[in-house]
Amino acid sequence: MKRVAMLCLLTAATGVLAQDKGLTGKWTATVDFFGAPLYWQMELKQEGEKLTVDFSGDKGDGTYTGGKLYFLAKDTVGGSEELTATVVDGKIVGNVIWKSGGDPDHKPYVRKFTAERNPERPTGQPKTHEFEPTVFRKQFSALYDPVLRINPGDTIHTWTVDAGGSDARGLERSLGGNPQTGPFYVVSAMPGDTLVVHINKLKLNRDYAISGDGIVPRGMDGELATKMKDAGKGVRWHLDLERGLASPENPGEHMKNYTVPVRPMLGCIAVATRPSNAAPGTGDDGYYGGNMDFNEITEGATVYLPIQVPGALLYFGDAHAVQGDGETTGDALETSMDVTLTVDIIPGKHPPEPRIENATHIMAMGENGSVDEALKEATANMAGWLMDEYKLTPSEVGMVFGTAAEYRISEIADRNAGVVLKISKERLKGLTKEPAK
Amino acid sequence: MKRVAMLCLLTAATGVLAQDKGLTGKWTATVDFFGAPLYWQMELKQEGEKLTVDFSGDKGDGTYTGGKLYFLAKDTVGGSEELTATVVDGKIVGNVIWKSGGDPDHKPYVRKFTAERNPERPTGQPKTHEFEPTVFRKQFSALYDPVLRINPGDTIHTWTVDAGGSDARGLERSLGGNPQTGPFYVVSAMPGDTLVVHINKLKLNRDYAISGDGIVPRGMDGELATKMKDAGKGVRWHLDLERGLASPENPGEHMKNYTVPVRPMLGCIAVATRPSNAAPGTGDDGYYGGNMDFNEITEGATVYLPIQVPGALLYFGDAHAVQGDGETTGDALETSMDVTLTVDIIPGKHPPEPRIENATHIMAMGENGSVDEALKEATANMAGWLMDEYKLTPSEVGMVFGTAAEYRISEIADRNAGVVLKISKERLKGLTKEPAK
Amino acid sequence: MKRVAMLCLLTAATGVLAQDKGLTGKWTATVDFFGAPLYWQMELKQEGEKLTVDFSGDKGDGTYTGGKLYFLAKDTVGGSEELTATVVDGKIVGNVIWKSGGDPDHKPYVRKFTAERNPERPTGQPKTHEFEPTVFRKQFSALYDPVLRINPGDTIHTWTVDAGGSDARGLERSLGGNPQTGPFYVVSAMPGDTLVVHINKLKLNRDYAISGDGIVPRGMDGELATKMKDAGKGVRWHLDLERGLASPENPGEHMKNYTVPVRPMLGCIAVATRPSNAAPGTGDDGYYGGNMDFNEITEGATVYLPIQVPGALLYFGDAHAVQGDGETTGDALETSMDVTLTVDIIPGKHPPEPRIENATHIMAMGENGSVDEALKEATANMAGWLMDEYKLTPSEVGMVFGTAAEYRISEIADRNAGVVLKISKERLKGLTKEPAK
Amino acid sequence: MKRVAMLCLLTAATGVLAQDKGLTGKWTATVDFFGAPLYWQMELKQEGEKLTVDFSGDKGDGTYTGGKLYFLAKDTVGGSEELTATVVDGKIVGNVIWKSGGDPDHKPYVRKFTAERNPERPTGQPKTHEFEPTVFRKQFSALYDPVLRINPGDTIHTWTVDAGGSDARGLERSLGGNPQTGPFYVVSAMPGDTLVVHINKLKLNRDYAISGDGIVPRGMDGELATKMKDAGKGVRWHLDLERGLASPENPGEHMKNYTVPVRPMLGCIAVATRPSNAAPGTGDDGYYGGNMDFNEITEGATVYLPIQVPGALLYFGDAHAVQGDGETTGDALETSMDVTLTVDIIPGKHPPEPRIENATHIMAMGENGSVDEALKEATANMAGWLMDEYKLTPSEVGMVFGTAAEYRISEIADRNAGVVLKISKERLKGLTKEPAK
Repeated sequence: MKRVAMLCLLTAATGVLAQDKGLTGKWTATVDFFGAPLYWQMELKQEGEKLTVDFSGDKGDGTYTGGKLYFLAKDTVGGSEELTATVVDGKIVGNVIWKSGGDPDHKPYVRKFTAERNPERPTGQPKTHEFEPTVFRKQFSALYDPVLRINPGDTIHTWTVDAGGSDARGLERSLGGNPQTGPFYVVSAMPGDTLVVHINKLKLNRDYAISGDGIVPRGMDGELATKMKDAGKGVRWHLDLERGLASPENPGEHMKNYTVPVRPMLGCIAVATRPSNAAPGTGDDGYYGGNMDFNEITEGATVYLPIQVPGALLYFGDAHAVQGDGETTGDALETSMDVTLTVDIIPGKHPPEPRIENATHIMAMGENGSVDEALKEATANMAGWLMDEYKLTPSEVGMVFGTAAEYRISEIADRNAGVVLKISKERLKGLTKEPAK
Repeated sequence: MKRVAMLCLLTAATGVLAQDKGLTGKWTATVDFFGAPLYWQMELKQEGEKLTVDFSGDKGDGTYTGGKLYFLAKDTVGGSEELTATVVDGKIVGNVIWKSGGDPDHKPYVRKFTAERNPERPTGQPKTHEFEPTVFRKQFSALYDPVLRINPGDTIHTWTVDAGGSDARGLERSLGGNPQTGPFYVVSAMPGDTLVVHINKLKLNRDYAISGDGIVPRGMDGELATKMKDAGKGVRWHLDLERGLASPENPGEHMKNYTVPVRPMLGCIAVATRPSNAAPGTGDDGYYGGNMDFNEITEGATVYLPIQVPGALLYFGDAHAVQGDGETTGDALETSMDVTLTVDIIPGKHPPEPRIENATHIMAMGENGSVDEALKEATANMAGWLMDEYKLTPSEVGMVFGTAAEYRISEIADRNAGVVLKISKERLKGLTKEPAK
Repeated sequence: MKRVAMLCLLTAATGVLAQDKGLTGKWTATVDFFGAPLYWQMELKQEGEKLTVDFSGDKGDGTYTGGKLYFLAKDTVGGSEELTATVVDGKIVGNVIWKSGGDPDHKPYVRKFTAERNPERPTGQPKTHEFEPTVFRKQFSALYDPVLRINPGDTIHTWTVDAGGSDARGLERSLGGNPQTGPFYVVSAMPGDTLVVHINKLKLNRDYAISGDGIVPRGMDGELATKMKDAGKGVRWHLDLERGLASPENPGEHMKNYTVPVRPMLGCIAVATRPSNAAPGTGDDGYYGGNMDFNEITEGATVYLPIQVPGALLYFGDAHAVQGDGETTGDALETSMDVTLTVDIIPGKHPPEPRIENATHIMAMGENGSVDEALKEATANMAGWLMDEYKLTPSEVGMVFGTAAEYRISEIADRNAGVVLKISKERLKGLTKEPAK
Repeated sequence: MKRVAMLCLLTAATGVLAQDKGLTGKWTATVDFFGAPLYWQMELKQEGEKLTVDFSGDKGDGTYTGGKLYFLAKDTVGGSEELTATVVDGKIVGNVIWKSGGDPDHKPYVRKFTAERNPERPTGQPKTHEFEPTVFRKQFSALYDPVLRINPGDTIHTWTVDAGGSDARGLERSLGGNPQTGPFYVVSAMPGDTLVVHINKLKLNRDYAISGDGIVPRGMDGELATKMKDAGKGVRWHLDLERGLASPENPGEHMKNYTVPVRPMLGCIAVATRPSNAAPGTGDDGYYGGNMDFNEITEGATVYLPIQVPGALLYFGDAHAVQGDGETTGDALETSMDVTLTVDIIPGKHPPEPRIENATHIMAMGENGSVDEALKEATANMAGWLMDEYKLTPSEVGMVFGTAAEYRISEIADRNAGVVLKISKERLKGLTKEPAK
């Protein structure tokens, strides 16, 4: 059964500017479903006693008279929202009668309804927050209390435990399984916005990492699995922090001279998911980001995530000193790390899946239950990016992919496989966003 | 990062009978990991002051003197558990020093340790419980309070809301998304045992069901998706309870005479997962069962599930009046249902994935991120069944599959695809479990 | 590079009846491409000196004066065919200038062009042909000479060697690899028609079959592969022809009483593919049928295949005494067989993939490189069947699948995996093909 | 049915040096199977009248007396080859009685047997051959006559038509579908050897390329397919040969400034497959190479292919001016090209799948029916490379992959998907092939 989940989707409000007269402006409606809040974006326009409404895409009108508000908004397949409410302390509070589009015989839902005006982006100088974590979370959940409230533009300087829960001194601070630092509440972030996370600095803070010597099942056919059947043990690597090199602490005879330059990265970065459904564990990934284990989420990268709940609730952790594509051992070189991030918001739109950018490329993630499906998702994510931001037609998207697509397999260790479609910024330079008029 | 998850696995203790002298017998150890209990099966043998221990497969010995207990158990790759404890009120309480096998450089864990004797199976006549649910859960979680404690052998007579949360009168009782009846605590069920659920009766209790008219993405190539782009709406079906027939309430012109015999089934049946990781939502499935949406989980079927936590914590819901293979619309004919189940336990062993049995077949489930991987899992599940229960050699398993395998695609609508490998009981009759001596 | 392959596709001509006046009627055009004939269906209508033409969907007109024929037909994306020809002995012979649609800058092709009127279906009583094969083919090729010419409606009684090339007496008659009996030329069969093969009788003709005891790679995850690493040997089965039972000749101790009822089937049945591309080997399958290894292609089944070349060129072989779903051992119970088939033609339309029908079900095949993709193909094939033959709308197709889909995994041993979507004829009875007027 | 295909496999002979006394040395045996030659490597050691034999891994002994040769070689599962022959003009000619291992009841095969001594590598100066092609082949077949015989070490300078069959002047020279230049017979190349092809020069020789604007089905989910439904047309690109830039000839408004540096590559490079099975078409790829469409098969790359037939029979073609990963349009920028290659042989061993090397990386190809399976194949191919050439243990392979794997998706347009696992030569420097003694 999947239909009801659609109730939890949210369409970003369109871009009319909020003007501060009467009820006119953008609001976030919260509707209670048996204890779980669901969110919708709503835009009102008040002219005298007349109201027009865009309720996450459903259009309608109504009245606002003597503190009493009424509207009826409709979708194109027979669904509607009919609100009767009052305005109290700047909040709209009332009851909504909800008819499900596409299922005309379904009894309407009647629900408690509250709407608050979308907060203004805070003004003032951005700050840097020194944050010392004490608890570490194992779900990308909207139900944990934020550890800190920050403004868009602010910078966080903090640290993460390793995937097994140990800190810079090797002390266990949590049960393992990618325990996260956070969540951080970003003031004025609303569902439907994009969270922008710029990774300023990833600094190794201890001299070893834990990894393994196996190959995950998704990487092996039966014949290789038979050969590898005794591998899969833990392996400890020495991190030479000065020279930036990793080498196995107890190498076998063919690897005594094997060193790899470190390339610190965050295995996990996520926004919280909506509280109406089970929160994903920190080993999982998806549209919210999460345990993407992509080795280009390094210093200098910017990650774009679709905000699901007020405040976004940013989590991160599972730092890796270095990781080959796919995280084929199941563990990369797992270590603790000092992390400096700057956080921002793009209001009113968000990507369907995480997007990443660095100095040379834009990169669209796809995560799904097979590499084949992840590839389709990455392709669709990048196609949407080029259509939305660069205004390309489908045909033009096809031509850019045909000449410039770079496909990387980012992750094969987790429940979802990950594929990334990269486009070089050199190629983007040739694209004309705004056609000549 | 995946390794730490392995800490959560449990090996079933072997089958020596518990004898009630001293500490001799089977115990369940609970070890605290930052607030999350992890469970292990432990078998002790006391002879005077000497102890031998099998700690979930790690073998060792120790002493029990004056209420003080000590043992050291080892695995074969350098890991060990060293326990210092006292026996208080029949419980073993102390500290364990844990060394991780395969990672010799890792600092040992030191953890609080409690062990309780595995409870005896309750004696006395089985009962039938009439249970009226009032809350409905959306995660297969070990953290919800049980709604009822029952004994192995007992029968539950209760009902389920539909996938959207509505009951027999069409009243909404929960947010949608397969809300579950339960969890039911089964006295004496322990991690490592098998929960046996026999479905006695599934009785439709209202005259309509909600479904859809689309095809889920996993079922469509691009060309069919383009043709189906306007489908995906809700469809209401009339259930003729007397004649046992379903028909669309507002059929198009080609389906005015279309009726389908109902075949009531449970879309979800599950045990709770361990509290050390995020609990799966009720749209998900896996080794714990869950939203398997297999249309042979009907009246008369018996479902075998691997118990993860004390009491098993049985959940069920998402009843379907009828469902084609794969649940291709995303919703089957979703309806509420009266459910009668008898619950039992097989101690000391459990399947890797759910197994099902009915009058004619044994059936092994595989659930995974692609149909291809689900097929491999179903095959491995059935191979294990034939090797363990029927004592077949690998070669014999190959021969049985080659002549008797029946593969069904059970589910393509959910995050995991499902494949079932069925073997007819007619074929099993030809298998000789115990070779002649 | 794939585009040029599209030149080889053919659109079936529409259903106007051929009337024998002037050039009016249906023709098959053959155009030479560096030695390879490509075929197109063409329909001409002559009125006086005026011609109208439908060239496999491209529409146009022209003239026919004094034995000289000229026409220009166009597609909707800029492509065209311009023919200058004469009519000689009832054939149209000339040169065509071909412009590729969608690639305006491409130089036009200039090609030799011949067209012959589509043959009439032969009249007269159907015959039964006793056919004794002497050569066995290992490609579904259009380049092998037909072994026999038969009329639509005729019956063939013949036999097949086993997959290893041995006949009823165990004599080797061919190198192994599914050597085929055929090809049979069906008079009046043209590209774009459907070949209908009704399997009247499949009779075992020797008392043993060859099989194996392994599981093919597509069926095993790494863990099962490790367990099965020593399996994969040949296994010989005794066929009790009187009682219709198969049992291993040298069973291990658990299988001494194991017997399986035989269920004779054809592993391969195919039409030849077009000579413009490499012919598939007899281990392969696809739109042309081939090595489908579907265990419901038994006595009583009817197979529908899309004809690619004049005469259809029917091949069959690889008979199995019994086979579990998926042919998990790689070999089913391979044996020789007596085969009786009746062949017919449905002119002017063909399925995209093989379709099968028996007493209880219609069945749509999908064959592709993964089970996931084969499932999509089977679904699309059946959706097309219901849309074309039963006139269902996309929404109605969704509803039928949601309540009546039966998915079987037919084949996992070959390069393509196979999935079959079955719909019970009981359900089809409820469908109204022709809406009331 | 797959077993018989195993007869066609060949195990490379082990590395004992051939010494030229009597029959001692390496031979290639050719056995006739109903007109198809199958090949085996055979090593004989003659001491007086005594013979020892290694017949592609089966060991045995025999006698050589008065020109009469007899031996019996056995495998470990009951199979054997028993040869009675005479030596005539340096050839061994006779009959072999073949028992199939693992199938003890199978009648032995009796076959004509011929063996010739493996040819010596020709001596003398390498030559450069100027070769002007006149026919172009559409199958990687062993049945086409070689167009030229060359020695190992020789260089070929020639040209290829584009994928559609047109040459440097735009003249059509073949039906499209990747027509190939070749096959080239490499003197002394034998089945079981590796063909080494070094690409010295790929030079564009005309000023345009043909491509498309769609996305292939493997790259699109249903939603993207619906958006892209009108794309898929041909697109012509201008190639600025002087500046090395490609740009669309008729760009839409967003791509008027879009240029891509050319990066000429060969879409196809292959050895012929064995004549016992259907030859693959030139749109296909596999262990023999073929239409791999990997955009790093450029100038400077070396390709390693497993030789299947005497002379190797090298084919190449389908040149691309530039191609994004995956060849997402189905056609890259297809053009004709001047090609300069140097060919060599590594005797007595060969990779399971194609391997490629350039200045910075070694690269292992995997080609299979899904990206998931191609990934497994690429991983196994590279694991074998590191185990065989760098002597790594399975555990060491796991550690190298975990820190240095680079996964690229090379091809999604063809029947097989392609994945490449790359390892940087920087990382290989740290590996010690020969452990210190």
